[in-house]
Amino acid sequence: MTRKITLSEKEIPENWYNIAADMPNKPLPPLHPGTKEPIGPEALAPLFPMELIKQEVSAEKWIEIPDEVRDIYSIWRPTPLYRARGLEKVLDSPAKIFYKYEGSSPSGSHKPNTAVAQAFYNKEEGVKRITTETGAGQWGSALSFACNLFNIECEVYMVKLSFHHKPYRKVMMNTWGASVIPSPSDQTEAGRKILAADPDSPGSLGIAISEAIERAAMDEHTKYSLGSVLNHVLLHQTIVGQEAVLQMEKAGELPDVVIAPFGGGSNFAGLSFPFLRYNLEEGKQIRCVASEPASCPKLTRGVFRYDFGDTVGMTPLLPMYTLGHNFIPAPIHAGGLRYHGAGVMVSQLLKDQLIEAQAHDQLEAFAAGVTFAKAEGIIPAPEANHAIASVFAEVERCKAEGSRETILFNLCGHGNFDMKAYEDYFAGKLVRHELSDSEISNSLAELQTPEIA
Amino acid sequence: MTRKITLSEKEIPENWYNIAADMPNKPLPPLHPGTKEPIGPEALAPLFPMELIKQEVSAEKWIEIPDEVRDIYSIWRPTPLYRARGLEKVLDSPAKIFYKYEGSSPSGSHKPNTAVAQAFYNKEEGVKRITTETGAGQWGSALSFACNLFNIECEVYMVKLSFHHKPYRKVMMNTWGASVIPSPSDQTEAGRKILAADPDSPGSLGIAISEAIERAAMDEHTKYSLGSVLNHVLLHQTIVGQEAVLQMEKAGELPDVVIAPFGGGSNFAGLSFPFLRYNLEEGKQIRCVASEPASCPKLTRGVFRYDFGDTVGMTPLLPMYTLGHNFIPAPIHAGGLRYHGAGVMVSQLLKDQLIEAQAHDQLEAFAAGVTFAKAEGIIPAPEANHAIASVFAEVERCKAEGSRETILFNLCGHGNFDMKAYEDYFAGKLVRHELSDSEISNSLAELQTPEIA
Repeated sequence: MTRKITLSEKEIPENWYNIAADMPNKPLPPLHPGTKEPIGPEALAPLFPMELIKQEVSAEKWIEIPDEVRDIYSIWRPTPLYRARGLEKVLDSPAKIFYKYEGSSPSGSHKPNTAVAQAFYNKEEGVKRITTETGAGQWGSALSFACNLFNIECEVYMVKLSFHHKPYRKVMMNTWGASVIPSPSDQTEAGRKILAADPDSPGSLGIAISEAIERAAMDEHTKYSLGSVLNHVLLHQTIVGQEAVLQMEKAGELPDVVIAPFGGGSNFAGLSFPFLRYNLEEGKQIRCVASEPASCPKLTRGVFRYDFGDTVGMTPLLPMYTLGHNFIPAPIHAGGLRYHGAGVMVSQLLKDQLIEAQAHDQLEAFAAGVTFAKAEGIIPAPEANHAIASVFAEVERCKAEGSRETILFNLCGHGNFDMKAYEDYFAGKLVRHELSDSEISNSLAELQTPEIA
Repeated sequence: MTRKITLSEKEIPENWYNIAADMPNKPLPPLHPGTKEPIGPEALAPLFPMELIKQEVSAEKWIEIPDEVRDIYSIWRPTPLYRARGLEKVLDSPAKIFYKYEGSSPSGSHKPNTAVAQAFYNKEEGVKRITTETGAGQWGSALSFACNLFNIECEVYMVKLSFHHKPYRKVMMNTWGASVIPSPSDQTEAGRKILAADPDSPGSLGIAISEAIERAAMDEHTKYSLGSVLNHVLLHQTIVGQEAVLQMEKAGELPDVVIAPFGGGSNFAGLSFPFLRYNLEEGKQIRCVASEPASCPKLTRGVFRYDFGDTVGMTPLLPMYTLGHNFIPAPIHAGGLRYHGAGVMVSQLLKDQLIEAQAHDQLEAFAAGVTFAKAEGIIPAPEANHAIASVFAEVERCKAEGSRETILFNLCGHGNFDMKAYEDYFAGKLVRHELSDSEISNSLAELQTPEIA
């Protein structure tokens, strides 16, 4: 009785899938933050290497994965795909449940899929140093891992609160040779300004982004890197879904529902876009469901309009589902999902009703995650618990409808660095974060960014 | 250029390899702690299920792995085997270096290989609860994981100092449903006695073993489980080496040297015994090297004689290389290697010069581990770092001799729960533990156990 569907190193896909080629409505262009006029790719040149900018705007359906990237992927790829027989039994599920497991990467999540690709293209163009921001540390770890292998300096601005609360993520980054700077710092104008106003500022992802961008902009050998949201990041993550398509074929199944956690979009896009291709190309009806936290519900309760990618308002304006760039999500443990907006491609697909979204409270998510851990043996990252909560909801629906479906979800990472979250959950310290309509409408009312007709 | 050699789920070996069948000199029998007379298997019945006792004394060469165990193995097995191309480059190594990676198991090390087997046989015989001890938490985590899947209660006596210093291992065990009790506790006579004398006792592995054994002995539905040292534990770990043999064959290589960390023997036996079989059966000359910490050097500086398996002196007397059961190893971070004695089969093999041993200081081990992490991308557990130090020594030898050999070692676990150790290493807080000859001879002089002619 098969439990795990594996692929050999030779079966690592040779191309990333660019869904832009198949989208019926292409994303609207980004706008200049000042003039509000559409900007071209050249505006991104100070921050990103040309090859990544080309990918950001590419209309090519398949983009070849360089051999050097596939070679490093092979440290942990192909990742396994599991039939969740234990979970099916515990839930008495009429639905077959499968999951793709990305926790076997050296930093423990799907993030290195894009970190390695980004480090490679930066190296090709002679970049000496890459800056980035990190909250809980998943993205900073992945980029530290990748930069180390390409011998690029890595400078991570880590939200000061997390820097002190999650020292082990910091040590992990140090082990791979990265510098980790608590943000706000005195290394940048943005940081110094914040510190002058509030020397005890705990920092925020918005501030850390500003610091990382400022550092990259002021040095020609330094570039900036982002771990989600942007098109090229989503593109690199499609390696996950491409493998899963092969594995589901080997299992003799095509999923009816594909589910993944949703932060900025790369986790969700990674698994779902290669399945969505069957809908766009062949008219199949695979439901692709994004699972977001109820405390940060941009897809289910946000609006579709232009907004900034960061809190400070330095980035181009992007057409996205958003809660407003000043929205501060509650401090839930699924740090990777605490982002006010959704990536441009995912937003357009939701607008066009080609994908769906569900929101789950963290208590519901952790209850599902613990049930999963006991049934399947792998302890999930808090982000993944949100997808598991969606799986539970879909199983309940199947029971109510008496339907036998096949569900696939992304177990995007392990929870080894999140034991404090589980401890708090067991101790009854996690709280439900009810978000009132007025909190959302107040945040959106502040927006002065262009609306979309 | 291949980096990783994988096997499919179907290639999980169907038998464990019992080296006892091939040993030229069979191990001497265990002795009763009181009478000092040889004891038979029935003496172990209060603590272990019959099937494990049969394995403990079996002379059969191959012991079939039950389907239920292979099914659970398939959660993380077969594990990958890597060509360490990055490390070879950094070391400018004339030797090819390969490593087997056991860190992809749900608890992060090789320990579940025996935990799952032990839980299965206990379940088969109707056992309701299993007790064990744990120091740093690797073994307790593995047994918690395994008991949960077979719906057996798991009670882990965790050394009190570790209980407070390593709370995340405790949470991990709780997530899989285990009870974790700081030891010494008031749950047992042994614990109460210690607490009466010293209410603030930080505990020790020896005390925790006494508590776990006492609990198992006083309840007919409760058994005890050990994570290394015993023959059946070493047997279950041979799944590691059996897979590695297949993988090295696929790579077209037979190793000249096989290296693994050494605590009680199961890590080392797991990888090396299936290769040692080629020496015993076909007269090949594969060197099998056990890597122990310089601070706990039973193989390189201990004596071969009868000794107790625990500190208190409750267990049968075993013929082993030992530093004396009262020897207290320095508090190095590689907690899994802090054991005064060596398993019986490994001890006999060393006595017969069929295997070798090397000792490395923890500073040397961590320096090697950090180099490895940067070269290969995976951050090793501190135990594994000792094997890596041996790899470095062998590479230096190959350079000096101008020889091109093939080295294989066991990367027995990841370092995700050991970041504090890396932090201390980077901060210069790890110290060298020089052990004088008189410290060792004083410990051995206290021994009143039978000598071996």
